[in-house]
Amino acid sequence: MSDLSGKTVAIIATDFVEEPELVQPRDALRDAGATVRIYSSSSDPIQAVQGDTDPTQKIDVDGTFDDLDASAIDALVVPGGTVNADRIRVEPKAQDIVRRVMEDKTPLAVICHGPWLLVSAGLARGRRLTSYHSLADDVRNAGGTWTDEEVVVDGNLITSRNPDDLPAFIKALEDALS
Amino acid sequence: MSDLSGKTVAIIATDFVEEPELVQPRDALRDAGATVRIYSSSSDPIQAVQGDTDPTQKIDVDGTFDDLDASAIDALVVPGGTVNADRIRVEPKAQDIVRRVMEDKTPLAVICHGPWLLVSAGLARGRRLTSYHSLADDVRNAGGTWTDEEVVVDGNLITSRNPDDLPAFIKALEDALS
Repeated sequence: MSDLSGKTVAIIATDFVEEPELVQPRDALRDAGATVRIYSSSSDPIQAVQGDTDPTQKIDVDGTFDDLDASAIDALVVPGGTVNADRIRVEPKAQDIVRRVMEDKTPLAVICHGPWLLVSAGLARGRRLTSYHSLADDVRNAGGTWTDEEVVVDGNLITSRNPDDLPAFIKALEDALS
Repeated sequence: MSDLSGKTVAIIATDFVEEPELVQPRDALRDAGATVRIYSSSSDPIQAVQGDTDPTQKIDVDGTFDDLDASAIDALVVPGGTVNADRIRVEPKAQDIVRRVMEDKTPLAVICHGPWLLVSAGLARGRRLTSYHSLADDVRNAGGTWTDEEVVVDGNLITSRNPDDLPAFIKALEDALS
């Protein structure tokens, strides 16, 4: 296992995030020694779901998007969940966070429906990436090269398709952080 | 009120359809005398929701997409609901239905997240339309001209943004059918 002591990772999400896509990277990175903080549109706990609509646990957050200094993190994780991703993509502060991370070439790991945020932030153009299959057209129309692989690493950008890809997604993220 | 006796309208939807966007057009058109049938990916009742994730009623369907002869209807309605729209857009049969309707210039009324189906069917290019605001970027990237109005009528295509627009959406659809 990688030793990620001293590394700081942020996760951004809103209600109806797909639970394993937030919890599994969070726990794996913490187990490896990283400091992982969760930021949302408000300071209320996030309602997680399984399979888009079934509510599971509420997840505590460490702050709002305003509290996140995107220039001071070692990686950013953007989980999916259809409704979470549909909402976070239109949050100007979330768009600013991914733009800053991309500009700094900080590792950016985005899974499932999360890539909608890249589309709305204007960051898909010219990149090779994957996503949940339903938004492949949106990624392509935004100028990205969509590819059907469990994990795609294009520079600092790490993307995966769905919760089944989490082992490969987390490994690629840990490699980028090491 | 318009007299729509003799007119046949189809509604296509899957689970997690936004309830009012299916029920209100269905009931208004039936009240005006039209025959309205509902088609889905299976013959099971559709689980409707309010506000994306709160389950409301189950809605009976009249058949599957295979049972719908798109060349024999007077109008097609595509309701929203984030998860419904995310799922129906990747159904090849649903894509074929909207392509046929567009080719025949049959009135096509699409609301909220429904326009993702137009994006995935390749039908947004060159059209003026609206949708729920979160997919404005997807519509524009697909070559559509997205506009923020309660109802947009471009030839046979009628689009609206959200459930609040239903009165204008239904009126435009009734006008197109009259």
